[in-house]
Amino acid sequence: MSGEAAFIAALRGLASHPAARGLADDCAVLELGGETLILTHDMMVEGVHWLPGQDPADVAWKLLATNLSDLASKGAEPIGVLLGYSLAEDNTRFAAGLSAALTHFNVPLLGGDTVRNPGPQTLGLTALGRATHRPVPSRSGAKAGDGIWITGPVGAAMLGFEALSAGNTSADTSADTSAYRRPVPRLAEGRMLAPLVTAMMDVSDGLLLDARRMAEASAATFALDPGAIPFPAALSAERKRDALGWGDDYELLFTLPAGMRPPCPAHRIGTVLPRADAPLLLGGAAPEGPLGYEHC
Amino acid sequence: MSGEAAFIAALRGLASHPAARGLADDCAVLELGGETLILTHDMMVEGVHWLPGQDPADVAWKLLATNLSDLASKGAEPIGVLLGYSLAEDNTRFAAGLSAALTHFNVPLLGGDTVRNPGPQTLGLTALGRATHRPVPSRSGAKAGDGIWITGPVGAAMLGFEALSAGNTSADTSADTSAYRRPVPRLAEGRMLAPLVTAMMDVSDGLLLDARRMAEASAATFALDPGAIPFPAALSAERKRDALGWGDDYELLFTLPAGMRPPCPAHRIGTVLPRADAPLLLGGAAPEGPLGYEHC
Repeated sequence: MSGEAAFIAALRGLASHPAARGLADDCAVLELGGETLILTHDMMVEGVHWLPGQDPADVAWKLLATNLSDLASKGAEPIGVLLGYSLAEDNTRFAAGLSAALTHFNVPLLGGDTVRNPGPQTLGLTALGRATHRPVPSRSGAKAGDGIWITGPVGAAMLGFEALSAGNTSADTSADTSAYRRPVPRLAEGRMLAPLVTAMMDVSDGLLLDARRMAEASAATFALDPGAIPFPAALSAERKRDALGWGDDYELLFTLPAGMRPPCPAHRIGTVLPRADAPLLLGGAAPEGPLGYEHC
Repeated sequence: MSGEAAFIAALRGLASHPAARGLADDCAVLELGGETLILTHDMMVEGVHWLPGQDPADVAWKLLATNLSDLASKGAEPIGVLLGYSLAEDNTRFAAGLSAALTHFNVPLLGGDTVRNPGPQTLGLTALGRATHRPVPSRSGAKAGDGIWITGPVGAAMLGFEALSAGNTSADTSADTSAYRRPVPRLAEGRMLAPLVTAMMDVSDGLLLDARRMAEASAATFALDPGAIPFPAALSAERKRDALGWGDDYELLFTLPAGMRPPCPAHRIGTVLPRADAPLLLGGAAPEGPLGYEHC
């Protein structure tokens, strides 16, 4: 909406620090004392970013994982996180899930704040990381001729969300919901790729939308080959277009110079072209319909 | 409540990183690349931390100021902030207030996130600073014989809150509400004091409560002289005890070795004693009644 767009634009205008690519690029990049810091802050709201009946342990995991995914897209090594937590009736499952996730990703909780909020539970997490390669990968470096790659399939989180919604249960721990409940940030892949890529980002809002964003930031056109895009085996052919516009998979989307192959498993899904009228082509044509989840 | 206390305790247990004094001490202190970083994250909720009718520009100011006050208590120089913002119907006043506050305190907005939240507006801010003196002041260094000092009066925010509540207006810009609406973090004082103090913190939750916390952290008893505590001129004598248990003034409370005088305006309000039965004495006796605002 226009008021919101104006607010976001105002915030972006405020983010005038040379290091502050944050509001445009999910992360802030800051030179400090010989290190390059990466900072990101994401919020999650009950009923908006997770299903009301979901296990709070999964919510804690996802809150951490999505922020770490932003660090992964910069090739950063996590240093620590700060938690903003609005208290629920029972907080034990959240604490257990957060503990498990912090241990799994070997990240310390550095601090934070707790509040009472009479409305839907609202969570925020700030993640701090250290760049392992400079310059830090951005969205804006893709060059005509580069290959377009992705580290894994798109659509698994969509299927997981649908299974969880249908079952309406928080106890469902079957593998087909885990992609939605417990995404795994591509931290190791991000570090391996950072020295090689011309551009990189995580796919949080839908492959088509995020690919278009990268194309726009790079002043290029991204031509995607629909036949080359990886999907989960369980996805039916008629759901593929939906999956292209669904987010939450947290794979890394990146570009490599022509002829270069990535040092980790990944799929080549297209080629960067000189900027044409459309920033994004899917099978040669600008895709119709929703490209992904447009953040407010 | 016990469940909440258990959750906070669990989070504190998670904050096992050597640098992570955060959940006990409002700030995380982190050595990185030859610098000492200070990190803090505070949340504010509509109807809990501000009056529903308040000017969003004041809310933005206060959100920034309270986080910068945590940096001030560490003698830190602000580097930048990240904002977690749940969108309201009209966001223009918030953006204007945030812009004014960022300019006033010369702090860049590095990034952040916006969400839709159908409940009360919930805001989070992460502030990042650079220590100007090491070791970084903490709450735990006060020694028997030290003088106890405060940079300014307590009770002005209480009077401001009461005036604002009574007037029920967001347009009231008279001086008597500004202490509540637009607190000023003692950044310059914090930097001047950091090399000298044995302990320091900002008074956010009430002088008596915060003094007791510092006494407990320092394993000492703090003896406060009620006649020496500064109050605003507008405060009547019978409200002084209320003011001692009211927070939001964001003055710095600190201890100095016997005989040392501070390099900035401040009031000596007591003396650190060896730890006795009571951690806090007011006019020679343990104070009765509420000491301050106990965070959930």
